[in-house]
Amino acid sequence: MSNRGSVENNIERDLIALFGEEAVKLGLEKLPYLHDSTEMQGLSGRADAVVLPEALDQICQLVAWCYSRGVPIIPRGGGTGFAGGAVPIDGGVVCSLERLNRILDFSPEFWRMQVEAGVTTGRVQRVARENGLYYPPDPGAAELSQIGGNLACNAGGPHSFKYGTTASWVTGIQMVIRAGDVVTFGGPVRKDVAGYDLRSLFIGSEGTLGIITGAWLRLIPAPEASHTVIAGYRDFRSGVAGLGRVLAYGLTPATLEYFDEGCVGATRRAFPGGLSDDVNFLVLSETDGSAGEADRISDQLMDALKQDAVFLSRTHDPRATAALTRWRSGVSFAVSAQRGGKMSEDIVVPFDKLAAAIQMLGDLEAQFHLPSCSWGHAGDGNLHATFMVDAASPEEITRAELATEALFARALEMHGSVSGEHGLGWVKRSQFHRQFGPAEASLLTGIKLLFDPDNIFNPGKKVILPHE
Amino acid sequence: MSNRGSVENNIERDLIALFGEEAVKLGLEKLPYLHDSTEMQGLSGRADAVVLPEALDQICQLVAWCYSRGVPIIPRGGGTGFAGGAVPIDGGVVCSLERLNRILDFSPEFWRMQVEAGVTTGRVQRVARENGLYYPPDPGAAELSQIGGNLACNAGGPHSFKYGTTASWVTGIQMVIRAGDVVTFGGPVRKDVAGYDLRSLFIGSEGTLGIITGAWLRLIPAPEASHTVIAGYRDFRSGVAGLGRVLAYGLTPATLEYFDEGCVGATRRAFPGGLSDDVNFLVLSETDGSAGEADRISDQLMDALKQDAVFLSRTHDPRATAALTRWRSGVSFAVSAQRGGKMSEDIVVPFDKLAAAIQMLGDLEAQFHLPSCSWGHAGDGNLHATFMVDAASPEEITRAELATEALFARALEMHGSVSGEHGLGWVKRSQFHRQFGPAEASLLTGIKLLFDPDNIFNPGKKVILPHE
Repeated sequence: MSNRGSVENNIERDLIALFGEEAVKLGLEKLPYLHDSTEMQGLSGRADAVVLPEALDQICQLVAWCYSRGVPIIPRGGGTGFAGGAVPIDGGVVCSLERLNRILDFSPEFWRMQVEAGVTTGRVQRVARENGLYYPPDPGAAELSQIGGNLACNAGGPHSFKYGTTASWVTGIQMVIRAGDVVTFGGPVRKDVAGYDLRSLFIGSEGTLGIITGAWLRLIPAPEASHTVIAGYRDFRSGVAGLGRVLAYGLTPATLEYFDEGCVGATRRAFPGGLSDDVNFLVLSETDGSAGEADRISDQLMDALKQDAVFLSRTHDPRATAALTRWRSGVSFAVSAQRGGKMSEDIVVPFDKLAAAIQMLGDLEAQFHLPSCSWGHAGDGNLHATFMVDAASPEEITRAELATEALFARALEMHGSVSGEHGLGWVKRSQFHRQFGPAEASLLTGIKLLFDPDNIFNPGKKVILPHE
Repeated sequence: MSNRGSVENNIERDLIALFGEEAVKLGLEKLPYLHDSTEMQGLSGRADAVVLPEALDQICQLVAWCYSRGVPIIPRGGGTGFAGGAVPIDGGVVCSLERLNRILDFSPEFWRMQVEAGVTTGRVQRVARENGLYYPPDPGAAELSQIGGNLACNAGGPHSFKYGTTASWVTGIQMVIRAGDVVTFGGPVRKDVAGYDLRSLFIGSEGTLGIITGAWLRLIPAPEASHTVIAGYRDFRSGVAGLGRVLAYGLTPATLEYFDEGCVGATRRAFPGGLSDDVNFLVLSETDGSAGEADRISDQLMDALKQDAVFLSRTHDPRATAALTRWRSGVSFAVSAQRGGKMSEDIVVPFDKLAAAIQMLGDLEAQFHLPSCSWGHAGDGNLHATFMVDAASPEEITRAELATEALFARALEMHGSVSGEHGLGWVKRSQFHRQFGPAEASLLTGIKLLFDPDNIFNPGKKVILPHE
């Protein structure tokens, strides 16, 4: 209890009276709830209170309490988003879902699981696996990220290429909306077209329409085997040509990732076994299925990737695979470490524009005099396009912001999107009117105002309202 | 031009002036547009005009024209739905999409196709196939049904078990909404979380939020091979136990269908090679993948299904498969032919309730003295639960309606849905308040009124508005 601070305001006092001491964080305990937990950019907010309800009825009470007083409420999962979606920008009550962490039903024989929002992604993955099943979404930070947050962001990850994003695995959703009503759309059924698809509308709504409190997840039998194929190229053009051949051959690996020159440069020494200096572009792909199938697809993948490859290898050794996974998980940090900071955006382009997008980033590097790099989910055309900055230089950060604006504009010119995975949150909300024309924007703001006319739920995020 | 009638009202006159003679159907030419084209139930409406725009700008004009005059507009694809969703109940303008039938872009190397709404499902399937690709949704009546209608209903079909419904294959949607604005959500990109997921909201909206005019579809490499496995059982309990073992074994066939006793009875003689009298329940399943994979899964499927089977066989002979497909396509008609009419509903239950749902239908048969049967997408828990009626007996039809009401109530008690494939349309709109509680219903009607405050788009369908 050494970090336990004292009550600072009436909101904390009232919420302690309602939910008890253990449900309200005070003083320094509040700090972890004021910023994205895996983001080093420094966006941090302030909260009038940080509340951790332990059950659905407490969330209903909390929402009713906030709603009747016009107090903003900021739902929070694991805080592993990158767009500031869970950051309380200017007060209000943070509602952390971490204590709603029960698996309410698990029916392995029927390939489904019903969970509360605070169950971690990693726990769902493990419980599925130990029963011969598989939950494919893998947005990263699985031990911190929570299913509710995954739904709120429609989280993706490498395996989206074959398996789709989180939305593909949700058959039902439970939300607390408006003044504290609980609504459910879908459930344990695999199909339902009776109403409008509000399940999908809530998925990806980033906490702005209500609080996701639970979900019914669909699982599949775990693939028997997986192989990893990795190829290194001298330049991005050879590598992207290889990626194109993977699609042209009609192969469906589970993941299809790339790492460009800047990225390879930042992680060359950490790469298992090292990388020779003539490798400036990597393709990493996992194949899965029955043992025969994983083997067959990786054979064909090797064939598709071999032209112009400096090296090409495959493995299904668990240790080698784990080493590659560790390296992959460290890429973002290694890139940040280059100059102390980075500005990284999850743009998406149609697959045929992947080479153009990588080239475009090089052009912006030259134009704005900022080192850049990109990596990501090649098969989905989803880049993590990054400018490496000196975090201590306001001038550089401003320059990176201008470069990023140009990046978004180019992505949209390519019929892409400013966000494939992270959402707009707070950080990218200024892109709202860039991505959406007036007619589309008016529908999106209409949805927000329909569900949340008083702008209580995560205000300022995702959409720009007419008066803002 | 022998069916060409004369102009009957000012609406037809005005629309001819706007769009030309060839765009407006008159007299008897209108008849096919007044009822579901594959439904024999007899629901038929009346239209003030039937218009076939030939391009997007004409749809915008038509919507603006209707909107400014308060004239209802009923979008229509192939008319192959079963819920009266495309039937003009009481006047208004039918807007048939059949002339918007261009494939705007097809990029086989990038696994995608951009189509206008009036392109038939069969054409998309064939164009994909002849380029080594596959469009999995197969709602039936592929040569009549149109992609726009498939999206409007989020159409399913047998292959939904492995591949998901239409929504899983749409990366972008174009709609004409409100007073004639064109909006686009998504596009050729495979991921996009910048806004709320209005793409999914429009999919399954049954023409009540606007007119779907185009879509970007995602394709996958065509499976190399497919096998068909069929098993016959003495009773439904043995058959459903076999289905349960398929899931318990962790098998993922492409389809997993069943046909109960009433259904088998109605089609026994049409079954390829005939069926012995002790077969009262059939399981039909397709496996697909590489040649080895389709073979391997069908081996395991045979193993899962063999217990208590009266017969069990497999084939990958195209003629045998085609014969089975023909039989399968005729089931609905054969059932209708038993007594001249049927009342058939596409309820869904969680998979573990499949046996209970089939049993429940038997109980209702006894209670309401009406022969019943069911068949459908077992893997998705999606039944076509059917009462066979004398179409000439109003008393029997009333009895079937009461039985169907009871059916819906029981499906919902099992945490199911009143519709897995067909939507509520007109026929099932009375189920709206049965399926949705007050809080859910208010959100759904709120969505309708947000997009269509004057209730111009397909009024009376899908939702029940507060004043109705």
